[in-house]
Amino acid sequence: MIQTPYLLFLGDAPDQLAAKVAQGITDWRPENAVGQFRMPGCGADMGLTDMTLEEGIAAGAKTLVIGVANRGGVISDAWKVVLVQALKLGYDIAAGLHTLLRNENELQSAARVNGRSLFDVRIPTVAYPIANGQKRSGKRALAIGTDCSCGKMYTAMSMDAEMVSRGLKSDFRATGQTGILITGKGVPLDAVIADFMAGAVEYLTPDNDDDHWDHIEGQGSLFHVSYSGVTMALIHGGQPDALILCHEPTRTHMRGLPEYGLPSLEQLRDTALPMARVANPACQVVGVSINTKALGEDEARAYLAETEQRMGLPATDPYRFGAAKLVDALLTR
Amino acid sequence: MIQTPYLLFLGDAPDQLAAKVAQGITDWRPENAVGQFRMPGCGADMGLTDMTLEEGIAAGAKTLVIGVANRGGVISDAWKVVLVQALKLGYDIAAGLHTLLRNENELQSAARVNGRSLFDVRIPTVAYPIANGQKRSGKRALAIGTDCSCGKMYTAMSMDAEMVSRGLKSDFRATGQTGILITGKGVPLDAVIADFMAGAVEYLTPDNDDDHWDHIEGQGSLFHVSYSGVTMALIHGGQPDALILCHEPTRTHMRGLPEYGLPSLEQLRDTALPMARVANPACQVVGVSINTKALGEDEARAYLAETEQRMGLPATDPYRFGAAKLVDALLTR
Repeated sequence: MIQTPYLLFLGDAPDQLAAKVAQGITDWRPENAVGQFRMPGCGADMGLTDMTLEEGIAAGAKTLVIGVANRGGVISDAWKVVLVQALKLGYDIAAGLHTLLRNENELQSAARVNGRSLFDVRIPTVAYPIANGQKRSGKRALAIGTDCSCGKMYTAMSMDAEMVSRGLKSDFRATGQTGILITGKGVPLDAVIADFMAGAVEYLTPDNDDDHWDHIEGQGSLFHVSYSGVTMALIHGGQPDALILCHEPTRTHMRGLPEYGLPSLEQLRDTALPMARVANPACQVVGVSINTKALGEDEARAYLAETEQRMGLPATDPYRFGAAKLVDALLTR
Repeated sequence: MIQTPYLLFLGDAPDQLAAKVAQGITDWRPENAVGQFRMPGCGADMGLTDMTLEEGIAAGAKTLVIGVANRGGVISDAWKVVLVQALKLGYDIAAGLHTLLRNENELQSAARVNGRSLFDVRIPTVAYPIANGQKRSGKRALAIGTDCSCGKMYTAMSMDAEMVSRGLKSDFRATGQTGILITGKGVPLDAVIADFMAGAVEYLTPDNDDDHWDHIEGQGSLFHVSYSGVTMALIHGGQPDALILCHEPTRTHMRGLPEYGLPSLEQLRDTALPMARVANPACQVVGVSINTKALGEDEARAYLAETEQRMGLPATDPYRFGAAKLVDALLTR
């Protein structure tokens, strides 16, 4: 539906984490991005060629993808100047922001005048049911985190890719705008009406073959007071057979909440597992995924070894060192 | 905004629990209901005078309040015939259903033609912020349950009424349609977009005097897989100083989920308190509220005594025997 390739709009993202949509596309579908568009003050860099809108068109780009996920998701006036110009030049625009492209008058009229499309991938396109809690066939793994933005999507995508490479039955199930932009489908869970959250997750992960695994993208954290309700709906709607604990070891406080410290991996395990067993008594914690991006290789390997020892669970950075260990744990649990 | 008195529409509610909106109004503001309107097959009875629409008008009713909270909230064709007739006769209509009155063409046009109003109290009227988790002044008590529909709203309302009767600073904070219809304000939490749930609860319970208590209406249950995400947002957005455990002792399975048993009060305490302490380390479980409606008086008192003994906490049915015990526990915690 959304035409590729993309030019990735980084706007004035204050830092790399704020551009996690663009980062996800760059990491998982690099062939879909011809380059990046940055504005003055932009603190993010995908390592792609910096392009003007015109250079993007010349390189073949069809869609300008908003690669920035701001808190609250506001479309600033400075952005609008760029986006209107892009529509004039022939781009479609795709975004997963809370503020919808379609609700901005300038963008809607520029799209109409120029015959272009606006894609708001965050908006649910389905009337999700209320969760019924009935046991579904097939297997499900859920990545849960000590914090937001700590590698849950990468963990699920890595495990899916590893299973696919082994010829096993597997799907990545996107629950956020990045995953949806990358894979073209999923549930924009944080935009779903509260009563239907768990039902949306049930809808996303239906009955399947007994040897098929859904790798469900986690959201938020049970310990992040802004978003813990979304995490809970994933745990109960997803009725996971396996939990993978995700952690970023250099984080000093919960993302966006300077007064809140991070829980330990033990606290995450001891809190999440009993809750998961309400929906699926067979659920187990099978492994630990550490986002070691901020660590050197020796430091990363030492941290993983210490974590394995301490937790009694396989631990790896699936994006950096491969997801084989986690998939092995899943299959032999 | 919504004109009183009401005629309570019970429709074809299958049982008493399905008519909990009507029950709440009957119990807490009986002076606002002139009677009840029932359709063939209705299994609910508020003990009010059964009236036709015409008799309701003659008794002075201004608004027909939909007193039924169906799963999924569908407005059936049989209902629409009645509702259109009510608008013709001069009623406004108020409802808290997921399916909006305003989205039903027949109702909207009948309201317009007859100059009447449709009130969808479930719809958020505020753009709630994302929760920031910052500590707020004032005190908050949250009613949490082993299941849905087990007396959380009644517990919070009873405690508020008890504090008001003692001349103490207190507010009941409605988070569902019944509470909103009764008190005229609140947050329709189960209709809020997922990312803003906890922020809506922060908005509902702002900074206040140090000796002021908010009594927050609970929703769902951490153990009800359909709605647990909403409960979690209340625990983290509400940052309660005190939790009151609510339970209905004759329930054999989770409401609407025949395959799911209820947790014990101990499990509820041990699960909820650590989660509450993420947002407010000073939080304590102060008492137990038992909905003894299905028990005889001796049986109820015996159950309460046994619960007090077992849990080491004051236990009462605040609606039946008064909330003094729970308020005492709150003030001396």
